[in-house]
Amino acid sequence: MKKLINAVEDVVTEQLEGMALAHPDILKVHFEPKYVYRADAPVAGKVAIVSGGGSGHEPMHGGFVGMGMLDGACPGEVFTSPTPDQMYECAKAVDSGEGVLFIVKNYTGDVLNFEMAAEMAYADGIKVQSILIDDDAAVKDSLYTAGRRGVGTTVLAEKIVGGAAEDGYSLDQCADLCRKVNQYGRSMGMALTSCIVPAAGKPTFDLGDDEMEIGIGIHGEPGRERFKMKTADEITEMMAIAIIEDEAYTRTVREWNNEDGEWFDLELTDDPFQSGDQVIAFVNSMGGTPVSELYAVYRKLAGICAAKGLTIVRNFIGPYITSLEMQGFSLTLLKADDEILKYWDAPVNTPGLR
Amino acid sequence: MKKLINAVEDVVTEQLEGMALAHPDILKVHFEPKYVYRADAPVAGKVAIVSGGGSGHEPMHGGFVGMGMLDGACPGEVFTSPTPDQMYECAKAVDSGEGVLFIVKNYTGDVLNFEMAAEMAYADGIKVQSILIDDDAAVKDSLYTAGRRGVGTTVLAEKIVGGAAEDGYSLDQCADLCRKVNQYGRSMGMALTSCIVPAAGKPTFDLGDDEMEIGIGIHGEPGRERFKMKTADEITEMMAIAIIEDEAYTRTVREWNNEDGEWFDLELTDDPFQSGDQVIAFVNSMGGTPVSELYAVYRKLAGICAAKGLTIVRNFIGPYITSLEMQGFSLTLLKADDEILKYWDAPVNTPGLR
Repeated sequence: MKKLINAVEDVVTEQLEGMALAHPDILKVHFEPKYVYRADAPVAGKVAIVSGGGSGHEPMHGGFVGMGMLDGACPGEVFTSPTPDQMYECAKAVDSGEGVLFIVKNYTGDVLNFEMAAEMAYADGIKVQSILIDDDAAVKDSLYTAGRRGVGTTVLAEKIVGGAAEDGYSLDQCADLCRKVNQYGRSMGMALTSCIVPAAGKPTFDLGDDEMEIGIGIHGEPGRERFKMKTADEITEMMAIAIIEDEAYTRTVREWNNEDGEWFDLELTDDPFQSGDQVIAFVNSMGGTPVSELYAVYRKLAGICAAKGLTIVRNFIGPYITSLEMQGFSLTLLKADDEILKYWDAPVNTPGLR
Repeated sequence: MKKLINAVEDVVTEQLEGMALAHPDILKVHFEPKYVYRADAPVAGKVAIVSGGGSGHEPMHGGFVGMGMLDGACPGEVFTSPTPDQMYECAKAVDSGEGVLFIVKNYTGDVLNFEMAAEMAYADGIKVQSILIDDDAAVKDSLYTAGRRGVGTTVLAEKIVGGAAEDGYSLDQCADLCRKVNQYGRSMGMALTSCIVPAAGKPTFDLGDDEMEIGIGIHGEPGRERFKMKTADEITEMMAIAIIEDEAYTRTVREWNNEDGEWFDLELTDDPFQSGDQVIAFVNSMGGTPVSELYAVYRKLAGICAAKGLTIVRNFIGPYITSLEMQGFSLTLLKADDEILKYWDAPVNTPGLR
């Protein structure tokens, strides 16, 4: 294993130390338990947005802490959920009294731990809302997930809901917007190579020298199918068509009710994309794929969207939700209405997005 | 070879097509010959800044075209110099009458071709200045270079001189500032893995599973020494100390005289860093190394600079001058005076840096 690390057990701690040294004007890092939070937190009168998850999906989430995006982020070990005490302590540190919105990617560990943290925060008098992101159209149920996985739409939700919170949205308004963004977004990923988790020291999965896998998750969870290598155009078409033609998707999510302090079930259905929709197109590198190759993908994607009657009104191209050094990419299309565009375009100042 | 490409011969063209589709508000692409230029070029009353070089070092240079940075960029094939006609046509497209500054990385092909382009532009009545970047402290003379190679300081020069041009600097003032930035900057790179150039289809060099190379160039040119893998702290220390303790460096550069239309030789000496200096610290990914590992490097670098009496007044951390998907990183330290800081902090709007 060749990585720029010292001891395996110190990887996340030392990376956070570097981040704190590099960006003292934007964020601070608390170490026991670990969380990253805005240097000016809590921001008076503002709902706080908090996310978190396993490390290794940089710059998400810690790199998205700052004005216009997250108030706090809880990093787990690499590809491992953070713990409820991280989330709870982070919520306490950033709550201004207006409440805290948790943005939770749909992985079983993350979901359970954020649920526990929500209950702990509520017991402490902090209003919480917890919104699930489950936008990965590749597979239903996966290695670490019941239902669809949470992937690229998470980044877009953090930006859009972060902008709305900055603009004075209430906790319930932030939750409604975040739920809408999740319902409007669909993603799919693919891998050319595996990454190596430091604690494992070997590739997460094996993929032949002439093979690729479509529909893979951000931890290397199995996808839809392996193929012999195809061209960028062929790969982009397979993935874009699968997203655009994805059928209505219905699932039951659990959300928190601050009135009675109880979880309740909510059935949500995502409608398919329709000709005439405006979309934000997000072409993401899994880490090891250069941005130049993402532009080749975007070239084909733009043609497919046009042919399907979708108008790309914004694009977002780069490594924003990665799997360490994995080569590959993911596509996310987000149906964009005026509210979503307004906050997508709002000012932001984080290490990972400015 | 697993890459997101179609036909090998179309790689750069299709990537540029994607870039043009993605950023029509910022830039345009001309295809025969190939150059990327500001959507609003020529900008009246402003000196135009033009750079270029082989493709594969993204987002440099095309991704740095836009307000506050480059007016034009000439992409060669992957790791191959662009041609004089690209540079000449680009200069004509972006010149407002105030002249064009070429920022040239020190690789023999780039240098020769930019010299020819300067002569062609001058013959056409365009004032030109051509400033060499040769900041790589790793080796003197290399595979494609007489003298030191041009690496990370190029990105800093494009930002700083681009900001000054936006602020009304004359062509000669831009040239003076660019020359100073080059003299104030020193860099060194290292590789954990090779990249694969599409047209070659196989790794540029072989490096054992437990080996790394210190001092490598951005095309995989040989460095100072190969070692068995070391820790991030050990690697960072080797490179940072080599940069900080690098002795006075003297070379003769060729510059262009617009008065008589002749090249002249100029002897330049870069002074070593001194305790008390303020610096901009640039930790760059070679492409495949995740930003999280760069933060581990920055953590150590900050300590070394402090111990050596250097104050890091700005930092810049991410993949900005890459070698396709190569894993590894480079360090650049740039002595920063008030003029340099003013334009480092100036507004910028490019695909690669905002």
